[in-house]
Amino acid sequence: MITKEILLENERIDDLQRNNLRIIQNPEKFCFGIDAVLLSSFADCREGDEVLDIGTGTGIIPILMSAKTKAGHFAALEIQKESADMAARSVSLNELDDRIKIVNGDIKNASELFKDNYFDVITTNPPYMIESHGLTNPDEPKAIARHEIKCNLEDIIKASALLLKSKGKFYMVHRPFRLSEIMVTLTKYGLEPKRMQLVHPFADKEPNMVLIEAMKGAKPRITIEKPLIIYKSPGVYTDEVYKIYGYSEE
Amino acid sequence: MITKEILLENERIDDLQRNNLRIIQNPEKFCFGIDAVLLSSFADCREGDEVLDIGTGTGIIPILMSAKTKAGHFAALEIQKESADMAARSVSLNELDDRIKIVNGDIKNASELFKDNYFDVITTNPPYMIESHGLTNPDEPKAIARHEIKCNLEDIIKASALLLKSKGKFYMVHRPFRLSEIMVTLTKYGLEPKRMQLVHPFADKEPNMVLIEAMKGAKPRITIEKPLIIYKSPGVYTDEVYKIYGYSEE
Repeated sequence: MITKEILLENERIDDLQRNNLRIIQNPEKFCFGIDAVLLSSFADCREGDEVLDIGTGTGIIPILMSAKTKAGHFAALEIQKESADMAARSVSLNELDDRIKIVNGDIKNASELFKDNYFDVITTNPPYMIESHGLTNPDEPKAIARHEIKCNLEDIIKASALLLKSKGKFYMVHRPFRLSEIMVTLTKYGLEPKRMQLVHPFADKEPNMVLIEAMKGAKPRITIEKPLIIYKSPGVYTDEVYKIYGYSEE
Repeated sequence: MITKEILLENERIDDLQRNNLRIIQNPEKFCFGIDAVLLSSFADCREGDEVLDIGTGTGIIPILMSAKTKAGHFAALEIQKESADMAARSVSLNELDDRIKIVNGDIKNASELFKDNYFDVITTNPPYMIESHGLTNPDEPKAIARHEIKCNLEDIIKASALLLKSKGKFYMVHRPFRLSEIMVTLTKYGLEPKRMQLVHPFADKEPNMVLIEAMKGAKPRITIEKPLIIYKSPGVYTDEVYKIYGYSEE
């Protein structure tokens, strides 16, 4: 098996069930979640768009979007060297090196890493939890992916406002408990919230994720879409989620 | 019929289906909608609370809340003299003069009308539409109730921030397309969004109303409740809405 050679200890290759795409993950450290999959479906790209994914982790979002959209190129930033290396191997495994470039670096140095006013689209599935409260090992990859240890919401939004073209689009998945802070911070940096969808585990439960689209330099007016429901019964996805995962025809 | 004497031309008395409450309305001018009913149910009051309703119209919100809550007193501000007079007659009709005081005045003069840092709770079902675009008769009562002719979102939020006690609660029903502007303006004046519920005409449709609770001087963290659905089939309310209207036992 030639693919075995590109795996480090504890890593495995998962089939993404779409266009024969595969991804390398290390279950001891961090595996992508449904939030990344939902964001890759929520984000709209036009043909030839230049896209940046901030905090790409395994590289799941640009890898899925390379199949779902006609975007031109994807840059994907990851601060953890080990994760960035693994994501780069996934890109090569899928022969996507001409479309996806993994960059190991810190979003707080955005202007040194990328050109200002360059990207048509930015996607991000950032750490949801505020700072490192309650963590015993804030250096662990899982902690860094989930808690605002290396960067916070404002760092990401501030950099995105700088890197997006005028009328460029910003897509983020986050937790609903931070919705007000998200809208205030987007607006502060000139990214106007334009579209939002709440994600509910079941139709009669509170939402546990929010998908947001903002546009640089747009006028205020937001469209709130109908809710996205994950399960129709325990363990059984709704038809909509099956479609997003690509298990059925779109 | 003694009640006939308190009616002006084109006015009628409607039964509110709760505690024998009735309300005077003029269908030629403006009748209360489901938004006011939903807000009166969404708003929480503790026993003895001092409550202000901004832009009370027919007086529907304090009249319903006088039955639904143990609040102490309600002040209800209305800029249109004719509406304020009609609301005051509804208050008398229900023998609520000791609990509800209708005030004819302009929210932009809030500090002359009411004491600062006085109210425990403020409710408002303000005009939803921006300015008077597309209106041929901006002086009509319906236009003033629906469009930001006499006051806008910021006027109401600014005054509410002044009139509420520290940790006092602000409740508003509005249109989802203005959600981001609502959160930004609330936060600007120190009213932190704490709870939100989207109202959908049907379970699979986009929301057409949003209910918001904000607290003066609170820390950021918002709870987004499960959606409120109005109809289970065309023309048939869901059980939840029947309960809110008081047609069935709560």
